Amino acid sequence: VKNDYKKDNSFSNRGMNFEDDIQTSNEFYRSQGLAVIHKKPTPLQIVNVHYPKRSAAVVTEAYFQKPSTTDFNGVYKGMYIDFEAKETKNKTSFPLKNFHAHQIEHMKAVLEQAGISFVLVHFRVHEEIYLVPGTFIVSWYESKENHRKSIPKIEIEENGFPVKTGYHPRIDYLASIDKWINGK
Amino acid sequence: VKNDYKKDNSFSNRGMNFEDDIQTSNEFYRSQGLAVIHKKPTPLQIVNVHYPKRSAAVVTEAYFQKPSTTDFNGVYKGMYIDFEAKETKNKTSFPLKNFHAHQIEHMKAVLEQAGISFVLVHFRVHEEIYLVPGTFIVSWYESKENHRKSIPKIEIEENGFPVKTGYHPRIDYLASIDKWINGK
Ligand SMILES: [Mg+2]
Ligand SMILES: [Mg+2]
Repeated sequence: VKNDYKKDNSFSNRGMNFEDDIQTSNEFYRSQGLAVIHKKPTPLQIVNVHYPKRSAAVVTEAYFQKPSTTDFNGVYKGMYIDFEAKETKNKTSFPLKNFHAHQIEHMKAVLEQAGISFVLVHFRVHEEIYLVPGTFIVSWYESKENHRKSIPKIEIEENGFPVKTGYHPRIDYLASIDKWINGK
Repeated sequence: VKNDYKKDNSFSNRGMNFEDDIQTSNEFYRSQGLAVIHKKPTPLQIVNVHYPKRSAAVVTEAYFQKPSTTDFNGVYKGMYIDFEAKETKNKTSFPLKNFHAHQIEHMKAVLEQAGISFVLVHFRVHEEIYLVPGTFIVSWYESKENHRKSIPKIEIEENGFPVKTGYHPRIDYLASIDKWINGK
């Protein structure tokens, strides 16, 4: 099964990136009362803050911290939704070096709590997006033979769910969740 | 029903604040495989970043942004958990001016998606903590008579659930969720 992210005309040449498109889709979902899903802010370690008179506080020294979780989470029809967005320029596989160990640990913890965990994988060259269940990513990551390698694209196609793109929402991953969870 | 946050000896004089204590409780819950709940990082609008040679990028100008959601979210036994932590020095009531309109909107949206929404209210003078269901907060906030006023403490006691404190976890709000949701 294939899909066509950015191949259709309404979508091309927008100059937006994958995460922005997901955020725009989340805003659409929220505005329609379909789901409440947000991107977590980038965590910063704040070292110095300046408090000028008559104007807003300014952070004058801060450092980027590694996120200890995934990019997005929220709620859809009572279900806890938790996912990571990943892109690759690779044509034939999705390299697992895209993941930090703590992200995998987070996915496992979410799965243990019966949350809906997945990765949205964007193959840039093909302009295709797949929803790949967290269980599949975790088991591939933890198998000794596959560790630190890549998941062949054909495996992603067989174990994942294609994500349709369009104008609103740009990246319709809720439809893919429905197919995955409810088989429709 | 009353409780005794910081009245018991194991807890007093720690010099910690309410949010830190919740975060420590969340770490305990995660370490025990009981729930996966995180505080969202404070959102910052980053204006300038300096990239020194041989060392980490430094944010040199950033401004605090108002969070568009609540403080904490995550998953517990398949349920989407979403809450805000609020403190008051007020003895007899909890002032609703503690809430921004967008936080109330977020709580409503979560409730519409069948998420578990609540507020942990800490009465500092009494050293008592209550889990107050989001439905109660939202309906109080939206009633014309109560708008922009306060919720009397007696109403919080009658409609909320006391939260026990101790050493591990410091603030055992999962136990209060169990009482609320499962009646046990
Ligand atoms: Mg990502
Ligand atoms: Mg708060």
